Amino acid sequence: MKALVYHGPGQRAWDDVASPVIQQPTDAIVRITTSTICGTDLHILKGDVPSVTPGRILGHEGVGVVTEVGTAVTAVKPGDRVIISCVTSCGKCDFCRKGMYSHCRDGGWILGNTIDGTQAELVRIPHADMSLYHVPEDGDEEALVMLSDILPTGFECGVLNGQVKPGDTIAIVGAGPIGLAVLLTAQFYSPAAILMIDLDDNRLRVAGELGATTLINSGDGQAVARVMELTGGEGVDVAVEAVGVPATFDICQSILAAGGRLANVGVHGKPVELHLEKLWDRNISLTTRLVDTVTTPMLLKVVRSGKLQPAKLVTHRFALGDVMEAYDTFANAGKEGALKVILTNA
Amino acid sequence: MKALVYHGPGQRAWDDVASPVIQQPTDAIVRITTSTICGTDLHILKGDVPSVTPGRILGHEGVGVVTEVGTAVTAVKPGDRVIISCVTSCGKCDFCRKGMYSHCRDGGWILGNTIDGTQAELVRIPHADMSLYHVPEDGDEEALVMLSDILPTGFECGVLNGQVKPGDTIAIVGAGPIGLAVLLTAQFYSPAAILMIDLDDNRLRVAGELGATTLINSGDGQAVARVMELTGGEGVDVAVEAVGVPATFDICQSILAAGGRLANVGVHGKPVELHLEKLWDRNISLTTRLVDTVTTPMLLKVVRSGKLQPAKLVTHRFALGDVMEAYDTFANAGKEGALKVILTNA
Amino acid sequence: MKALVYHGPGQRAWDDVASPVIQQPTDAIVRITTSTICGTDLHILKGDVPSVTPGRILGHEGVGVVTEVGTAVTAVKPGDRVIISCVTSCGKCDFCRKGMYSHCRDGGWILGNTIDGTQAELVRIPHADMSLYHVPEDGDEEALVMLSDILPTGFECGVLNGQVKPGDTIAIVGAGPIGLAVLLTAQFYSPAAILMIDLDDNRLRVAGELGATTLINSGDGQAVARVMELTGGEGVDVAVEAVGVPATFDICQSILAAGGRLANVGVHGKPVELHLEKLWDRNISLTTRLVDTVTTPMLLKVVRSGKLQPAKLVTHRFALGDVMEAYDTFANAGKEGALKVILTNA
Amino acid sequence: MKALVYHGPGQRAWDDVASPVIQQPTDAIVRITTSTICGTDLHILKGDVPSVTPGRILGHEGVGVVTEVGTAVTAVKPGDRVIISCVTSCGKCDFCRKGMYSHCRDGGWILGNTIDGTQAELVRIPHADMSLYHVPEDGDEEALVMLSDILPTGFECGVLNGQVKPGDTIAIVGAGPIGLAVLLTAQFYSPAAILMIDLDDNRLRVAGELGATTLINSGDGQAVARVMELTGGEGVDVAVEAVGVPATFDICQSILAAGGRLANVGVHGKPVELHLEKLWDRNISLTTRLVDTVTTPMLLKVVRSGKLQPAKLVTHRFALGDVMEAYDTFANAGKEGALKVILTNA
Repeated sequence: MKALVYHGPGQRAWDDVASPVIQQPTDAIVRITTSTICGTDLHILKGDVPSVTPGRILGHEGVGVVTEVGTAVTAVKPGDRVIISCVTSCGKCDFCRKGMYSHCRDGGWILGNTIDGTQAELVRIPHADMSLYHVPEDGDEEALVMLSDILPTGFECGVLNGQVKPGDTIAIVGAGPIGLAVLLTAQFYSPAAILMIDLDDNRLRVAGELGATTLINSGDGQAVARVMELTGGEGVDVAVEAVGVPATFDICQSILAAGGRLANVGVHGKPVELHLEKLWDRNISLTTRLVDTVTTPMLLKVVRSGKLQPAKLVTHRFALGDVMEAYDTFANAGKEGALKVILTNA
Repeated sequence: MKALVYHGPGQRAWDDVASPVIQQPTDAIVRITTSTICGTDLHILKGDVPSVTPGRILGHEGVGVVTEVGTAVTAVKPGDRVIISCVTSCGKCDFCRKGMYSHCRDGGWILGNTIDGTQAELVRIPHADMSLYHVPEDGDEEALVMLSDILPTGFECGVLNGQVKPGDTIAIVGAGPIGLAVLLTAQFYSPAAILMIDLDDNRLRVAGELGATTLINSGDGQAVARVMELTGGEGVDVAVEAVGVPATFDICQSILAAGGRLANVGVHGKPVELHLEKLWDRNISLTTRLVDTVTTPMLLKVVRSGKLQPAKLVTHRFALGDVMEAYDTFANAGKEGALKVILTNA
Repeated sequence: MKALVYHGPGQRAWDDVASPVIQQPTDAIVRITTSTICGTDLHILKGDVPSVTPGRILGHEGVGVVTEVGTAVTAVKPGDRVIISCVTSCGKCDFCRKGMYSHCRDGGWILGNTIDGTQAELVRIPHADMSLYHVPEDGDEEALVMLSDILPTGFECGVLNGQVKPGDTIAIVGAGPIGLAVLLTAQFYSPAAILMIDLDDNRLRVAGELGATTLINSGDGQAVARVMELTGGEGVDVAVEAVGVPATFDICQSILAAGGRLANVGVHGKPVELHLEKLWDRNISLTTRLVDTVTTPMLLKVVRSGKLQPAKLVTHRFALGDVMEAYDTFANAGKEGALKVILTNA
Repeated sequence: MKALVYHGPGQRAWDDVASPVIQQPTDAIVRITTSTICGTDLHILKGDVPSVTPGRILGHEGVGVVTEVGTAVTAVKPGDRVIISCVTSCGKCDFCRKGMYSHCRDGGWILGNTIDGTQAELVRIPHADMSLYHVPEDGDEEALVMLSDILPTGFECGVLNGQVKPGDTIAIVGAGPIGLAVLLTAQFYSPAAILMIDLDDNRLRVAGELGATTLINSGDGQAVARVMELTGGEGVDVAVEAVGVPATFDICQSILAAGGRLANVGVHGKPVELHLEKLWDRNISLTTRLVDTVTTPMLLKVVRSGKLQPAKLVTHRFALGDVMEAYDTFANAGKEGALKVILTNA
């Protein structure tokens, strides 16, 4: 079969490779019909993710059709259309029982990382009963592939950890795909104001269309001052960090109201300076989380009810066979105005 | 009357001063019968708390007898024996309604800070209905004065924010009075193991008597390694920072299990380095809090039931008139083996 | 002044009465500009509420202007436009500190019950700092008067107690004003489906306009069967009882999914039969509550953000001086198509 | 092998039967070393549980040694000593993912009910990875067999659902084995007072030894009056129903404070009358639950820490081969002073 293979920093190719086979009784094989590219895939290509070794098929998002299942699989069968979770979970270990699938003793984020991934014609999914979700009748695959990673990530790490409540004022720092997923899912809880902060006016414009009530370009270094002014000097109830660098983390800790929650979603490569000398008496909380995808069934219900339209995040479409070109587009997201890039395998 | 007055960094005196008077209809005047000294009082004397200006009467803990009340006070009356909360709350502002008395728009920690305090023969207590608690029949004042500050601080900032649960493994870094208050109140929730970490063997010995299951002297720089070994490499469910310096914060962030909670209790004077590059995917939470004293009624019930014996923290006793000597002893806590120093005004 | 006075079962009159005066330092006097009639007022007139004695001025909802305040009132001043909470709270007693204002030791639902109420030109409001809320700039009084009672009642007793979550399927039994308030505020949490059950097609039609996804007229006795069919035999996540009679309670307990929540909002006059022989192993919860109005500040923020438009519940408008006629209309709600009837005092 | 077989109402025998075999790849076979008898087994023998048909091997509690596992079992292997959960869970269905193992789509309470149980030399355990727990080194089997059912039942249905908190006043109605399991596990949360209500003075005496602070024999019909007097007319924070008949439920609803929680643990055979005309405005909650055994890992940690000593509930011991006699003793619990009866298979 064909697959997008990582060949070391900066190197990728659309290669012929051996098709995956069932290895454990709990495995399934899925033929990919829709996939997409994540910011994390770009990090891998830069060589920033040492667990990914040359020869690895990339990708951890996808929708497809089951072609084969192991003897212990009961929830899905060949022919079923399924959403693939970016996180694999056994369902039985101590972490899975606590809903921390991301730390599963025999899973977690392994697809396109320590095992082969979804930017391929076929993929092997371990613990298939826990890690695949049925596509509902008439489900829109472009919308549903957002349930593989980006929507549960925004919702769990940003909205749930941030404890967004009706009437809250929240700020999201970073209007990339993940920040926009936070924006979409934060609205489940009817906050009164959503401040979106980014350096890119195009992304801010999209945020405005998707429900942000105030758009702040932080390029002038005045974002903190703007937020404090807009909130009468009080700060925000929830600040979501959706970038992953010290500067954006710093904005978040500087705009938090007493009693506020700072929900970190970004992937960080270095330490940050935490101003405990200012925050120790502010009754704040700061959370981190790798997406657990425990909310996927809930999100699927909300998508089906029409209250969430994740396909709005799609800006570009390619055939899976053109994945090399799709990466080029996604890697130049700013210039291309790219958010989510869909890969289709008819 | 007589009172302990701050006269600038390093300067204090047992002075004759004017007695306090009712200023607002919600005020009460209390004659102090028992008071104590807090580590914060030492910080003030070092000049580290700029809100405290020369001439201020220190102290924010005390038990006493109401001598006079304003026209709108209904919950206490002259002659009532009361516990004074270290935090003053109006009960009506937005923060008080959320249980964040520490951020009360007309209160918070003001006693011995921005208004005169409790190391005096008399003290004025604003918002008396909210800020005073009746002493139960036959209540032991030495035990009850611990309800002014230290017990709610340990319980709210350490135990509640740390979400201590039955069966948990918790670590408390710092075995001073506040760390020991965390230790005492953590046991309300039946953790399976309580690891106490400090540099002082005497304080660790006390911690062992008060319920710690493992004592770790961190003087050899091996505290993190010891904790990780004891927890099979997993780390602890809850780490409570009860010192307030970067080194102890660093121990806390280094021993946290995936899914763990870091509850900061210490008062910090500088920023800390937060290792988000290691923690971003660990599903942890970090909390800060200035004690709200919202749990004082609950703590009073537990003290009355005999399940909590805070008087065990008392190591020294002085007459209030000997407060100058009492400060000397408390300031040399290590050498004197001092934890809480009681001041009695017969 | 003029006021609507209760003169015993079935007897009411628009009388000349003495104007209220400040009695406690925490009182305020409010000149009513907008009021409304509650279903509870009709119960009182039937003689069903023994705490209401002849001579009482009715009404517990209103918006107005403060004319005078007691010496201890600090949050409002003469000239301020305010929303009057149907529940009076001292803010200081044990119940108020737990957020149970409805059980305040010196308040609760007393307006138009044990003290004179709001269907009058002037009303005395005890504990004014806790029980009045400022009208925002340009606030629509018809919308804001819904914050006196009906919206917090629907939200607290129905939505919060029912723990409505994104993706949930909920059923509301009773499409009167309170059931519709549940409907409006349930949407803060993005349930996937809202089933509205009533006997009156007109009220169901309104429910459909306000966001209900399925309308069920229970007149044919098939409501339970319909709900079970619509939910694939599973039942609903949340059932809200918004009528207050055994038959509607029975529908609720019959349609609850395993793990479901039954939130009782209705005022009941008799016991109900609870089928514990069917429910003991179903992991359900059943809650009751008298509105506490603790969520009024949150609701006010949501109203101001435009996400909640309570004025949609208004069907009729009268001058306050025509309150006798307004009662006639409201008492014939079915025939008149009446939901909330506004009384205006220009 | 030998097993205790149900032969219809009132009929049981210690029969020779076929040994169980692996049927699914997720099954395990366990050789029983310790078992016990549950009150539910007596209900079955009375013919009150129609899902149990003649020929069924009874018993849903046990500790033993794994003798064989299916091909998909990974968490246990032959030779492992294990605790058997009374509830079987697949870990993968919608209910299991919510922690509602009791409603597992392919499990729940099936042992000794719809499939053969543990009062036998061997038992087949479906979904072994989820439904078995390793016995810790030096674990006391008599203590650990209480983790099969009685302790998680008391803890989950009574203590967690009742939301027992430090300082609370709680009442437990019914001092049988389940009520005593509530008593033991309620103490994890340091309630200030635990009132135990029963008709049997011997059981009350045991309750006193296990931590109850007040013992009330309800034989004189004055239990409600006694509780209200002891609580100053306020009622209790938590009332746990641990019997399962209308009279005991009625005590619970009559003693509940405003804001209180009624946690039903008892198995009910008929409806009860719920006094909503008194309770509708009392802000109470009422919960039901079939034990999910989701807390077994937590309970195991607490047992190992020495904070919970469930073996105190054991009053009688028999060889498994004498199970017929053991049933006779357990069926006459009042006369025999029996609580938990241990069956040992050396």
